[in-house]
Amino acid sequence: MRMYDIIQKKRDRKELSEAEISYFIEGYTSGEIPDYQASALLMAIYINKMSRKETEHLTKAMLESGDTVDLSGVNGRKVDKHSTGGVGDKTTLILGPMVAACGLPFSKMSGRGLGHTGGTLDKLDSIEGFRTQLTEEEFLAIINKTKLCICSQSGNIAPADKKIYALRDVTATVDNISLIAASVMSKKLSLKSDAIVIDVKVGSGAFMKNLDDAYELSNEMVRIGQSFDRETVCYLTDMDQPLGNTVGNALEVAESVETLKNNGPKDLTELCLVLGEELLLLGNAAKTKEEARAKLLDTLESGAAYRKFLEMVESQGGNIEQIEDISKLPKAKHVLEVRSDAFGHVEAIEAEEVGKTALMVGAGRETKESEIDLSAGVVISKKIGDAVAAGDIIGYIHCNDEEVGKAACEKLKLAYSISKHFVPKRKLILGKVDRDGIKTY
Amino acid sequence: MRMYDIIQKKRDRKELSEAEISYFIEGYTSGEIPDYQASALLMAIYINKMSRKETEHLTKAMLESGDTVDLSGVNGRKVDKHSTGGVGDKTTLILGPMVAACGLPFSKMSGRGLGHTGGTLDKLDSIEGFRTQLTEEEFLAIINKTKLCICSQSGNIAPADKKIYALRDVTATVDNISLIAASVMSKKLSLKSDAIVIDVKVGSGAFMKNLDDAYELSNEMVRIGQSFDRETVCYLTDMDQPLGNTVGNALEVAESVETLKNNGPKDLTELCLVLGEELLLLGNAAKTKEEARAKLLDTLESGAAYRKFLEMVESQGGNIEQIEDISKLPKAKHVLEVRSDAFGHVEAIEAEEVGKTALMVGAGRETKESEIDLSAGVVISKKIGDAVAAGDIIGYIHCNDEEVGKAACEKLKLAYSISKHFVPKRKLILGKVDRDGIKTY
Repeated sequence: MRMYDIIQKKRDRKELSEAEISYFIEGYTSGEIPDYQASALLMAIYINKMSRKETEHLTKAMLESGDTVDLSGVNGRKVDKHSTGGVGDKTTLILGPMVAACGLPFSKMSGRGLGHTGGTLDKLDSIEGFRTQLTEEEFLAIINKTKLCICSQSGNIAPADKKIYALRDVTATVDNISLIAASVMSKKLSLKSDAIVIDVKVGSGAFMKNLDDAYELSNEMVRIGQSFDRETVCYLTDMDQPLGNTVGNALEVAESVETLKNNGPKDLTELCLVLGEELLLLGNAAKTKEEARAKLLDTLESGAAYRKFLEMVESQGGNIEQIEDISKLPKAKHVLEVRSDAFGHVEAIEAEEVGKTALMVGAGRETKESEIDLSAGVVISKKIGDAVAAGDIIGYIHCNDEEVGKAACEKLKLAYSISKHFVPKRKLILGKVDRDGIKTY
Repeated sequence: MRMYDIIQKKRDRKELSEAEISYFIEGYTSGEIPDYQASALLMAIYINKMSRKETEHLTKAMLESGDTVDLSGVNGRKVDKHSTGGVGDKTTLILGPMVAACGLPFSKMSGRGLGHTGGTLDKLDSIEGFRTQLTEEEFLAIINKTKLCICSQSGNIAPADKKIYALRDVTATVDNISLIAASVMSKKLSLKSDAIVIDVKVGSGAFMKNLDDAYELSNEMVRIGQSFDRETVCYLTDMDQPLGNTVGNALEVAESVETLKNNGPKDLTELCLVLGEELLLLGNAAKTKEEARAKLLDTLESGAAYRKFLEMVESQGGNIEQIEDISKLPKAKHVLEVRSDAFGHVEAIEAEEVGKTALMVGAGRETKESEIDLSAGVVISKKIGDAVAAGDIIGYIHCNDEEVGKAACEKLKLAYSISKHFVPKRKLILGKVDRDGIKTY
């Protein structure tokens, strides 16, 4: 087999065989196939697309390029949750304690952030001493005791995906349905859970800019899950504005703690309830949606979810004082007000621009080597549909460099569109895809 | 400007600007743009194609990436000839002396061969002492004295093309009309001739497998020539079987000498006459086709073309004894007969397979580093339309390794298709494209 012939075949719109896809993935991971041949193939795949069968083969080959994580040592039914990445998405930090407080084990292997979307592990770094690098023994001991553990994924999960993603990132071949689906699913399938719930973000702050593409991606992922005998459910949720009110690591931990105490923003709370319902049903921890919601709401109202979070912080070596008093989390030197020049109703908040504003003050990584400023970030005070008077505060910039912060204020202002007309609130849950097909909300 | 955005634009079927194309060519030639980004762009160009304007800009940028050769020191009108590459194509070795013997200077900067098509310089290496690496002074002295010089192109002609061609060769992006046209024309335009005649090969042994593609390529090259004020004429000629009867370096030199003595194969002689007519007309060395043909025929019949070849060999330091007695050219140890198993008429000879057979016994380069066996090659004794009895010799393999030679015999046999029915001879000249448009023969 020759890589040249594989490129030529895809270039000419022919279907690649399982053996050809494996040859590419193995050869590229081992370094035998050079970047320039891989990028030519990726561009041919991008333009000519892949069939469902090819996408399945690609997922399988990427999955098999690395290790799998055996969860048989975890007691009970195992469910997993994934988000395709959005701005201000701290769902895992809230959903995990809620679900675990309902008695269902929640173990999440997370990653770090790159670009305008943040990573869960970076957020947890805001808590002094919190350890995300755990041995398998530590992981199993924690999850079986507290039913909750959020840690970093081992170095060798789907290494092919890691290498290919880095190449796609610099060759304009990222936003292709098959490549995204295979990338997400190869990582998810490497963790041997019983079911997977995927939060597919849709809108200006997400990979999927429109609903049609998001449905196609969701459908692809559900089918891949099926072909691997893994029940997969996708929720399509709005990312046309940031989720909740904060973007930035310590700010998001603080907002999560507030939400766990049932004082969080409505959209964030609602998303955790919807995803939680699905997790409880898939994990056999509830029989109906109504029962699931009642249980989840109770974890917020009774303080059980908040206590579960404290338990996790303690079990992973973190300083619980910073949770019991969130003013002890990392704090920026300056908090700058951003005020509206116009009056009316908030019509749009470009989520990607908000993410880039946070990036600007140091809340994220420009490149893999960047250091994160845990205290920096953006607070959104007005969301789509809210009324605004001229001079009203629409947000805050938390920063340690005042000059950069001032520029960030201007950038945040530009992310807002204010209309003279009435604007309805945004719908949060846009659709759902599972084995039974597509459901529009 | 960012290479990422250029790739994305072409990926999305948008037209690239002159500045964007220059940015790519300059950045890639200087090494600032990595191979993996260049190959992603080349694949996007391959699949989504380039407009005529883009192709012109690409040609210009590649031309400007290197030096141009000033021919103002050459007396008289300057014409240039190029072949897109075929199997057994030794036209330059015959056409050059014929045209020079008619008084028109013929200076040709040639290249080396790669893969199944041979290079003119490799053929000339068969003659002991023949120098193709000349200084500009030597070149001018020779061309003005003898009106004939075939030498290697300087190291810095269109370096962008050289680098891009090497990348296309390993990423399945070779046979795209725009990329071929820009590659050929950037090199041709760097030599400041007055007119260019291009022999566009069509058929199984050529880049262009069918007539439609060959017309499209020709049209593109004629238009590019026009936009650079360079009169360009393309002839479409048959490459569905090898040209002449030999494939291999010393074998082709011997066949060229025979042809110059008017004892050559009919197809090869005819092609030289047709291309020669056009060169004489463009070079103002004849007023009509008839006059041109009469002059050219006379050079063969009078021995003037043969004497011109001897003069060239002498002026470039070659051993003329090997020309005066072609049995002194490099000779293979073994000459193996290939006999037909079937009877009937030759219906097809896969030219590419014949080229690969020659490659197998060492007549060409598998990779840029390969050493060539000058004595090795293939002789074709029967051509399309010829009658064959079972047991008849259809060809010979010249080789120095008998085992490899035997396998080559089998390979050559497979290149032949013998039909039970009558098969007409192949037409040689298939079409012509010039500033007045397309002419079908």
